[in-house]
Amino acid sequence: MNKDDVKKMSPNEFRQLARTGEWSTKTAGLCPGYVQSNLAVVPKEYAFDFFLFCYRNWQACSLIDVTEPGDPHPKLVAPEADLRTDLPRYRVFKDGELIDQPTDVTEYWRDDMVAFLIGCSWGFEGAMKAAKVQFRTLGDFTTNIPLVPAGPFSGYMAVSMRLFKSSHDAVRAVQISSRYTPEHGAPVYIGEPEDIGITDIYNADLYPHENVHPREKNEIAMFWGCGITPQLTAINAKLPIMLSHLGGHMLITDKLADELAVL
Amino acid sequence: MNKDDVKKMSPNEFRQLARTGEWSTKTAGLCPGYVQSNLAVVPKEYAFDFFLFCYRNWQACSLIDVTEPGDPHPKLVAPEADLRTDLPRYRVFKDGELIDQPTDVTEYWRDDMVAFLIGCSWGFEGAMKAAKVQFRTLGDFTTNIPLVPAGPFSGYMAVSMRLFKSSHDAVRAVQISSRYTPEHGAPVYIGEPEDIGITDIYNADLYPHENVHPREKNEIAMFWGCGITPQLTAINAKLPIMLSHLGGHMLITDKLADELAVL
Repeated sequence: MNKDDVKKMSPNEFRQLARTGEWSTKTAGLCPGYVQSNLAVVPKEYAFDFFLFCYRNWQACSLIDVTEPGDPHPKLVAPEADLRTDLPRYRVFKDGELIDQPTDVTEYWRDDMVAFLIGCSWGFEGAMKAAKVQFRTLGDFTTNIPLVPAGPFSGYMAVSMRLFKSSHDAVRAVQISSRYTPEHGAPVYIGEPEDIGITDIYNADLYPHENVHPREKNEIAMFWGCGITPQLTAINAKLPIMLSHLGGHMLITDKLADELAVL
Repeated sequence: MNKDDVKKMSPNEFRQLARTGEWSTKTAGLCPGYVQSNLAVVPKEYAFDFFLFCYRNWQACSLIDVTEPGDPHPKLVAPEADLRTDLPRYRVFKDGELIDQPTDVTEYWRDDMVAFLIGCSWGFEGAMKAAKVQFRTLGDFTTNIPLVPAGPFSGYMAVSMRLFKSSHDAVRAVQISSRYTPEHGAPVYIGEPEDIGITDIYNADLYPHENVHPREKNEIAMFWGCGITPQLTAINAKLPIMLSHLGGHMLITDKLADELAVL
């Protein structure tokens, strides 16, 4: 399948490809303008605490949809999608251990599964590019920023890092991303990476970018909450079972980022 | 207790008055600038579905805090407050029937109680006044706007209604209220009251205002989601027990409306 052909597809057309296994790689750049979603699926027994955790740590865990127990269809953002099949690749955890990375989680789905869909920063990145904001993305990192606990869930925030050419670009990025509250909203930190526990900006531990050229002296570093956070938290809590997407292999929803933006 | 003396108090000082029963009337105008909160308390058994309901109907049920089961302290917005005693007056429902309107719900509190705190439009009203937006409030009404169901919770939205002198005032009101996403955010409807099932604007069925003078020909009507909505929904679901505030007898939090605003 040629990536340029896929790029022109509607979200529903693309999800058919993922459903049949014809597309099992990353989704970056596909269906431009549409919100892509991180996924964390937990049993109903843990769903209230997990909901509370996401709510209390909104900038990392900003929700775009939450399903009723057992329902694999995200009614708010993609009612025709099937969360068991429509992501290109999944990760399955038992007791906090990775046991499988399938292209379909139908065999692991249960009647008590609740899916949490978490927005992705690609939405506000598109808006920043449209506004000619000059920036580059260095990937996703773990930090030492503590999260507000809820029930068995706690830990440290994952962030995405971007470098900006000028103060003007950085200010515009704060303004623009603030509108996208379902996709992490405003930055959580402006300053030096080492202040929040990031030691090597050229090798992102969660989602590295390739061929990163050295940071220039006047580039301003800003950090946004990252949708991998709830997944990491659920893994750390060693739930008996938890389903998620493989990094970068997202659900493509029917909602445009601008449809969900505030103001 | 003189209202002018009380107005100058800090939220914590005021809550002491409510706690001891020295203040058991409405809270409108007290502690200006601080977010006042609607309350709905449900047993843990229903908490996930109720959380989902609030999330799916955010403009009516915008949350400013949710507590862990049994914890009477809203840690995010007023950690020193006690939700069992610090509202001036409560309503207690069993199986959907009102059984008590006490100034203290300690005797009804249980280890599995989860409190949902819902922001109040007085926050964006203050910001509108500060910006010299000309408007008047006609009270809170039931409508025929259907809510998105979740579990046993469904129904119709309650709204607050305001009239604006000019298009300019109406536009500014949309802009300003949009910033206050934890306090209902932007309007849900612009247009004629009868379009959404409101038949008598001078006698609000949920929270009437007194001495309302007739609507002028060019006044623009706008409607915002109202924090009574989740309480009404929980009553309709006939939960075995549900605690809430009496209309207008709110929790005063430690958060300024401008602290919680976006952008």
